[in-house]
Amino acid sequence: MTHWRFFSTIDLCSIALVLAFVNIGAASASVRPNLLLIIADDLGYGDLGCTGSTTISTPSIDALASQGVLCTQAYVASSVCSPSRAGLMTGRDPRRFGYEGNLNKAASGYATRAELLGLPPNEHTIANHLAAAGYSTALVGKWHLGDAELFHPNHRGFEYFCGILGGGHNYFPTANNNKIQRNGQPLKEFSSPYLTDFFTDEAIAWIKSRQTEAINDPWLMVLSYNAPHTPMQATEKDLADCQHIKDPKRRTYAAMVQAMDRGIGRVTKTLQDLGCSERTLVVFLSDNGGATSNASWNGKLSGAKGTLREGGVRVPMICAWPETLPAGKEYKGVVSSMDILPTFLGAANAQPLELSPTLGHQDATNQSRAVERYGAYDGVDLRDTLSGTTPTRRLLFWRLQGQTAVLDGNHKLIRLPHRPAQLFRPATDVGERRDLANGAPEIMLRLMQKLGEWESNLTTVPLWDSSPRWWRDSARIYDTWNPRPEPK
Amino acid sequence: MTHWRFFSTIDLCSIALVLAFVNIGAASASVRPNLLLIIADDLGYGDLGCTGSTTISTPSIDALASQGVLCTQAYVASSVCSPSRAGLMTGRDPRRFGYEGNLNKAASGYATRAELLGLPPNEHTIANHLAAAGYSTALVGKWHLGDAELFHPNHRGFEYFCGILGGGHNYFPTANNNKIQRNGQPLKEFSSPYLTDFFTDEAIAWIKSRQTEAINDPWLMVLSYNAPHTPMQATEKDLADCQHIKDPKRRTYAAMVQAMDRGIGRVTKTLQDLGCSERTLVVFLSDNGGATSNASWNGKLSGAKGTLREGGVRVPMICAWPETLPAGKEYKGVVSSMDILPTFLGAANAQPLELSPTLGHQDATNQSRAVERYGAYDGVDLRDTLSGTTPTRRLLFWRLQGQTAVLDGNHKLIRLPHRPAQLFRPATDVGERRDLANGAPEIMLRLMQKLGEWESNLTTVPLWDSSPRWWRDSARIYDTWNPRPEPK
Repeated sequence: MTHWRFFSTIDLCSIALVLAFVNIGAASASVRPNLLLIIADDLGYGDLGCTGSTTISTPSIDALASQGVLCTQAYVASSVCSPSRAGLMTGRDPRRFGYEGNLNKAASGYATRAELLGLPPNEHTIANHLAAAGYSTALVGKWHLGDAELFHPNHRGFEYFCGILGGGHNYFPTANNNKIQRNGQPLKEFSSPYLTDFFTDEAIAWIKSRQTEAINDPWLMVLSYNAPHTPMQATEKDLADCQHIKDPKRRTYAAMVQAMDRGIGRVTKTLQDLGCSERTLVVFLSDNGGATSNASWNGKLSGAKGTLREGGVRVPMICAWPETLPAGKEYKGVVSSMDILPTFLGAANAQPLELSPTLGHQDATNQSRAVERYGAYDGVDLRDTLSGTTPTRRLLFWRLQGQTAVLDGNHKLIRLPHRPAQLFRPATDVGERRDLANGAPEIMLRLMQKLGEWESNLTTVPLWDSSPRWWRDSARIYDTWNPRPEPK
Repeated sequence: MTHWRFFSTIDLCSIALVLAFVNIGAASASVRPNLLLIIADDLGYGDLGCTGSTTISTPSIDALASQGVLCTQAYVASSVCSPSRAGLMTGRDPRRFGYEGNLNKAASGYATRAELLGLPPNEHTIANHLAAAGYSTALVGKWHLGDAELFHPNHRGFEYFCGILGGGHNYFPTANNNKIQRNGQPLKEFSSPYLTDFFTDEAIAWIKSRQTEAINDPWLMVLSYNAPHTPMQATEKDLADCQHIKDPKRRTYAAMVQAMDRGIGRVTKTLQDLGCSERTLVVFLSDNGGATSNASWNGKLSGAKGTLREGGVRVPMICAWPETLPAGKEYKGVVSSMDILPTFLGAANAQPLELSPTLGHQDATNQSRAVERYGAYDGVDLRDTLSGTTPTRRLLFWRLQGQTAVLDGNHKLIRLPHRPAQLFRPATDVGERRDLANGAPEIMLRLMQKLGEWESNLTTVPLWDSSPRWWRDSARIYDTWNPRPEPK
């Protein structure tokens, strides 16, 4: 346990508690935990049993929640896939390094650096940090942080990669219709005809291969499902299990989520079989809110993928680590997907790598200013937060498609191109129904200043931008995608 | 005279006046006027005798004002040089076609289209329109709309070009230290050692060459001084004339402005000598507000070049046309630099060219939507406006370095990254001292909606962006550059 951790948890009234932490820390340092990050894709906030769905069955994910901590106010770094994953993988606000628009076919037409259509090479990934600390590292599933060789997961800290470089894929791959690879080699044969099951098989096989080694050789597995992102494709069996849902698209969505849940159940069962459940820290989350395209349901939240409303950036997140974290707890404070990196590093007793020097197009002065203000990394170690009772006060920023937002403690300010800035208290007003802007000029001014300071200290302009058409689309969803009952 | 023009000026109580207009219109149609556009560079709003300076002597520009109409609320399309000129040259809001950031060395590092670092090839310039209508066309001085061959003035409608392609130049060119060219050929000899005088000589020589031709061969001359942009360099004689100004930088600035004024006097004298003063429409304006770097003075305005406050986008503008426009009039309504194109075309009895098809990176749907909402061009023909008494209601937009603004009739909304949006009435509150935002939620909402609609219908994202450092700089100037007495 480092002094840094000691001081951040100290409670002068609870010396006994502190000593307890010290003991846990000492244990963790000797046997480092395995780290398993499971990512869902465009999953709606309400689409799990543990977050409110009464039609979709997710027993495995619900079991994770009952064995760990369900974070009810967890935010991702962006409300579209690629920049969200850039924040997740680096533990840094992706706008800092120009990673703002989604990475898709249109991006190359709006790129300021055609050679950098992906995660900038001077950013460290979570796998870089953990590999440097002696972890085995693997990514199975969706990457979506750049297609070019420069960005390949095998060059970004993952010694093993099986999956897709892009943002989506058909779910019934054959030898001739797939872009699936293993460590750079195209794949022609699959252990399962359905992609979600195949990724599950791959993850399990790799985890099993690691557990034949010495106990002091811990591993990081990022299991990055592309489910339930479009295209809407499910197996006949899963569809049959969802016959109770009338809307065909919603039924397919539910079947896709259930396939993912089944996969997660198989992975956690594998951990049990291998006897390493207790010392594996598992984090599950979605990369952004449910999309308007996949029949997802964001529960009581407003907005959807592509907006900065809660429905775009607030996601289900579960942290389970029987050895250390409480079981069956609901944590209602703010956490961020960018916290996963420092949490994993803390659990692994590893120090983060130092930031690399800025690239030619990056402003070194702004980089220094930003590090001074916000630190080199934007997350916090959640181990103490989730065990404690006092929520950590957070400051989070977003920018996408003409929208900017800042969350500072209890207040979230959203600024859109087409209306006056709005102010919400999303902890209690989860649906963002009560705009407090008019009655709180001082808070508005303070948050605007923070937003402006942040924008002015970004290291670069966006590496690529989103078409103005997406601006329009974001505005449209923002105004029309209000909370509704779960689709049946 | 077209019916269109007739109906826009009709005053049922003043039939005699209408008939007088009809006669003037008939004369103009048969003998088309010469068109002379004179551009100053980074000139402060207050730095002319006719706009309030008591230290800088500008008798020639003041004389133009007394012979024509001084517009006291004239706006340029941007508050930095290059996009302002893109709006001026095309008569279109430059953001429509992605011309948003200033064009400088940094731009190439932030370009989404490295091949399009200049005025997009599918945009028509004022010279394209007028050349198609039979005008001779010339540009003398600063271009600043692209260095590459593709963008060269000779390829953009100007049959004659003498000057610089970039944004600034030293004022004492020699054979070895200059980037001055004539129609693509580098120049080694100059008629005058001082650049402002040289550009004046060039403009006069070309105008004289045109006046040897038949009277029905009218001309367009754009005399685009780089004065009083930095570097701060003046002749010994001009400096001696400004000894009364103590601050050395301000003294140099005044000397540079006086050299420009002397040049303008020589040009107008040439018109008189050639007997074509009456039938030459002269427009004078600055490309943006005074800069913080050149010791300019924006009079009662707040802000400076780089901001969207009045001091950035409101400039002195004079329209003189003895044959048609009133003399010695002050027009207090809103006009725009984008009005010059339709005014020149109207005076020349020429129709604008149709918009070209969109380029590959441009969104044709957005183009159509924007044309439907705002028209193909963003200006109005000022001939009737300036002669009339009822100001035309205007809707103008700006976006630069994180700032957006809209002027709708009497209200101007400014949205910055670092503070709540503000609302001013710049016609009466020229210094933008009274923020009306809190008391006018309905106006705020309406203007925000207009701003959002405009942003969502741009044809492309910016062709290049400004570094976040400029965002910071704009914010700094915005807050600190308040109205002050004229520097002495």
